[in-house]
Amino acid sequence: MSVVRLLGIDPGLRFTGWGVIDVAGNRLSHVADGVIATDGDSAVPDRLRCLHDGLMDLVHRFEPAEAAVEETYVNRNGSSTLKLGYARGVALLVPALAGIAVSEYGAMAVKRAVVGTGAASKEQVEMMVRRLLPTATIKRADASDALAVAICHAHHRASALRVAAGTRTA
Amino acid sequence: MSVVRLLGIDPGLRFTGWGVIDVAGNRLSHVADGVIATDGDSAVPDRLRCLHDGLMDLVHRFEPAEAAVEETYVNRNGSSTLKLGYARGVALLVPALAGIAVSEYGAMAVKRAVVGTGAASKEQVEMMVRRLLPTATIKRADASDALAVAICHAHHRASALRVAAGTRTA
Repeated sequence: MSVVRLLGIDPGLRFTGWGVIDVAGNRLSHVADGVIATDGDSAVPDRLRCLHDGLMDLVHRFEPAEAAVEETYVNRNGSSTLKLGYARGVALLVPALAGIAVSEYGAMAVKRAVVGTGAASKEQVEMMVRRLLPTATIKRADASDALAVAICHAHHRASALRVAAGTRTA
Repeated sequence: MSVVRLLGIDPGLRFTGWGVIDVAGNRLSHVADGVIATDGDSAVPDRLRCLHDGLMDLVHRFEPAEAAVEETYVNRNGSSTLKLGYARGVALLVPALAGIAVSEYGAMAVKRAVVGTGAASKEQVEMMVRRLLPTATIKRADASDALAVAICHAHHRASALRVAAGTRTA
């Protein structure tokens, strides 16, 4: 069975979590995870370049076949939303520049895929990520969220493949 | 007197205006202006790549020494703000990737620099841009706004140079 490598990204201007997993059928395995931190004292363009370079390095190092980005919650003030937009823009751009298909998933979809309910807490998500990927180290919650979006994408693409292959699920 | 080339950018996911001017002391001259349009039917990552490639092409073609980006108004809903954030993120990123210093100016500062009052209308700004840069063609308002932010940066950097040189203005 062929192995597909996925990159999950949970973008933020200060901390961007990332996680790489391999998918072979229903089997998931952890490859790597981490956080790209940008210097809060630097100018925004320099921080975006740091994020760009960090993500581009991951793309070259792990050569993922597909990427998935978490559509983070938007309920704060305009200025915070704009800054989150900068980081998400770069997170969507870098895989596109490398010719990698990027999917986006809302927080509810990610929780549903990982825990089984869209109402799951952050702790439940992290616990399930650790259970599904026992070899993951996960130093920061952002990396756990990034692995969760990668897992979510693995589930969705498996369903899409089943549909494409004409397999009946019921 | 040395000539400094400036690139002004008025970012948007659908239309990003751009304008290039040359500055020699107090003298401004128009070099080029235009709009980068992305296909509203394409996926967001592809649109961001299109914007990235368009801006990178301008940087290589015109080799500006400095760039200035308009800090567009943020008073719409979260989703629009986020999309504007994507475009602004790419507009701030590309000059940074090319090693060009990027400044940001709010709409009020741009109007004040071009028309003399922060309460100027869009029409007044465009009229003054045409008066200051008589050879500009300006097919779309976005390009006029981009030239306006370049003019604003020209004024601000001239003031900064005067201060740095110890010249008294009063």
